[in-house]
Amino acid sequence: MEIKDLRVNGQRLQESMGRMAEIGATPGGGVHRLTLSDEDKAARDLFVGWLNEIDLDVTVDEMGNIFGRRAGKSNGLPPVMAGSHVDSQPSGGRFDGILGVMGALEVLRTLHENSVVTRRPIVITDWTNEEGSRFAPAMVASGVWAGALNIDWAYNRTDVNGNRFEDELIRIGYKGPASCAAWPVHCYYEYHIEQGPILEREGKLIGAPKGIVCLHWYDVFLEGEANQVGPTPMEGRHDALCAAAEMILAVNELPERMGGNLVATVGEIRTHPNSRNIIPDRVHFTVDIRSWDDDHALNAWNSARGNFEEIAARRGCPIKIEETWRVQHSPFDEKLVQRILDIAGYLGYPNLHMVSGAGHDASYMNQVCPTAMIFVPSIRGRSHVEVENTRWEDCEAGANVLLHAVMQSAEEE
Amino acid sequence: MEIKDLRVNGQRLQESMGRMAEIGATPGGGVHRLTLSDEDKAARDLFVGWLNEIDLDVTVDEMGNIFGRRAGKSNGLPPVMAGSHVDSQPSGGRFDGILGVMGALEVLRTLHENSVVTRRPIVITDWTNEEGSRFAPAMVASGVWAGALNIDWAYNRTDVNGNRFEDELIRIGYKGPASCAAWPVHCYYEYHIEQGPILEREGKLIGAPKGIVCLHWYDVFLEGEANQVGPTPMEGRHDALCAAAEMILAVNELPERMGGNLVATVGEIRTHPNSRNIIPDRVHFTVDIRSWDDDHALNAWNSARGNFEEIAARRGCPIKIEETWRVQHSPFDEKLVQRILDIAGYLGYPNLHMVSGAGHDASYMNQVCPTAMIFVPSIRGRSHVEVENTRWEDCEAGANVLLHAVMQSAEEE
Repeated sequence: MEIKDLRVNGQRLQESMGRMAEIGATPGGGVHRLTLSDEDKAARDLFVGWLNEIDLDVTVDEMGNIFGRRAGKSNGLPPVMAGSHVDSQPSGGRFDGILGVMGALEVLRTLHENSVVTRRPIVITDWTNEEGSRFAPAMVASGVWAGALNIDWAYNRTDVNGNRFEDELIRIGYKGPASCAAWPVHCYYEYHIEQGPILEREGKLIGAPKGIVCLHWYDVFLEGEANQVGPTPMEGRHDALCAAAEMILAVNELPERMGGNLVATVGEIRTHPNSRNIIPDRVHFTVDIRSWDDDHALNAWNSARGNFEEIAARRGCPIKIEETWRVQHSPFDEKLVQRILDIAGYLGYPNLHMVSGAGHDASYMNQVCPTAMIFVPSIRGRSHVEVENTRWEDCEAGANVLLHAVMQSAEEE
Repeated sequence: MEIKDLRVNGQRLQESMGRMAEIGATPGGGVHRLTLSDEDKAARDLFVGWLNEIDLDVTVDEMGNIFGRRAGKSNGLPPVMAGSHVDSQPSGGRFDGILGVMGALEVLRTLHENSVVTRRPIVITDWTNEEGSRFAPAMVASGVWAGALNIDWAYNRTDVNGNRFEDELIRIGYKGPASCAAWPVHCYYEYHIEQGPILEREGKLIGAPKGIVCLHWYDVFLEGEANQVGPTPMEGRHDALCAAAEMILAVNELPERMGGNLVATVGEIRTHPNSRNIIPDRVHFTVDIRSWDDDHALNAWNSARGNFEEIAARRGCPIKIEETWRVQHSPFDEKLVQRILDIAGYLGYPNLHMVSGAGHDASYMNQVCPTAMIFVPSIRGRSHVEVENTRWEDCEAGANVLLHAVMQSAEEE
């Protein structure tokens, strides 16, 4: 068989995904596989066993990242890397993360059974704690590996029960001997479900994001005046929840008002004393603004901030704003992105040049080496929920794109 | 001294209030004296000691209500009763409830030291668990006494730690031998801080509420669609928090739109999953509507409900509404209310015929016997907070009104 006619085994990929979905399976059809839990350990053990079956050289680093190296003809050359994560959200789906790991495994199995020897070595990886659901923040282990985050800080992160990250890493037997620090990589591919509805709406099968949008997080704190609701007339009230409600709607209207590529969301709100017969005197809510255009996101924020201050003054509710976190938009390697589109076209898959609205380990890898991602459709755009779903033929198609992208990169000088 | 010239001892009232404020004193100048706590027991013990000092006949009933009876000339006649409660909100003030108990005590001390013997006996009372902060609902012991609530149900109420009401009552030694059931009462007076800003705004010293407004509680449950915020375009979102924000503002605007006597409040909101990067898919919030006019409150609710349904449909967020609780407005005895106003006028205190926006033990007593309340100003209308405050001269004035109201009623045939 000619290399260009090589295809992955879609049935085998589905079976691997099915085995993984059993680990931490939830009644609603999703998975509960929090990082460094017993379920994470079980998934890692299964994964490492599969790496050994195809004779990969397996190493685990001190952050628990797992690497499986397949030798090439020129083993002195930096390898091509592909992977994602096996951990999940608390009530996560069966595709988020794991598809990129099982997809890369299926690529290596296909090369193995066809005795394909590439010029460069190929490394498959599972990054520890991509989700950040148990230990905040997200993508912490790829961040340490890329040199962006400090390992001692990461080790001392604790979960809600006060368990330390490092202690849990040791407990499940995945604090490895290898240093968690970047070594030369030729390029990195991450295959992932889209987690949005764009591909489905556009009728496309493969998405090649040109990069990851910027991410701006804000925390807003409002003060009102608590009083019993019955004896307190409406006039003269300082109701922090009403002020917050106006601000939530201002955030929601921001993208339409500003135009361009922008999403803006309030996902979290806490009210004090949160009692049905007391006027709320303290409200905290969050704002999440994302855009491909960092300046546009900042302009939108400045506009919202102006609204907030006007609302707070009018309602007599003092406001405090924290500009919590800003990550600039991260453009992927243009040549690699074009390669994804070209391969999808060659394979006959309708494809789309798009953006990624979510962060991925690819964000940190993009700081280390040329990086690109491959997206397949999420049914109804649902993700981070148990009903998250992707058609099996789409999973297979994405793995075929990954196969050819990895093979092409692995032949490069 | 003639009876009409009798006055309470304002200094002694202030001292009694000061002693009580030490029990459960909080750093912010308030009190933490939850019902059936050690602090409640200490306040009760002090109170009972003071009742004994003026030779009252003290009984405790099986709900822990404390009654101190002062004999009159005609002890076969039903007594005049006055009282309130010594328990507090978790971060409550030094006046709510306790002023009505210490005020009644000061009245009885004044009668005692002046050797005044009234025709009818007089009973002072401390009602258990008026606040309902530790064991819901509020006013439970006066409710059982009035025959409106069942004692076994009340006994089995639990606090957040699972402690039973009855067990805690026994623990602090206040499950008394007397049956908790109404006996004949000639009339009931409850002296209380206003807990609102009306008296202060109107420049009045004494308020005589014509009754307690109606109270309608609703619970609203919204469903949205949870998705990661980054990859999910604004168009097609079903954001349950945005729907709730519109509804909160609709509730806030209701009184102005409907006119008349009406307050409407959202005090409580809970959002799921309450994560800054996930679109909220479940929101629960409460609505509290109060008016002197029950029909007006119902019309307002029907208008709000129509708004809610329109908003829910427009945003694609299914809505479920529970009509949780409705208490009709409770008019006090007109003659007693007029008596309060007349006495205030006689004593030279500017006074106001008003309504009570909050519920009180007087609500249940109003089902048993002719009832009225005496209000004094709350500084800036603040209550249920540590900074709750009332001027000492106002406390004294209210007690003088109570003194003369009690004396007049106690002389009636």
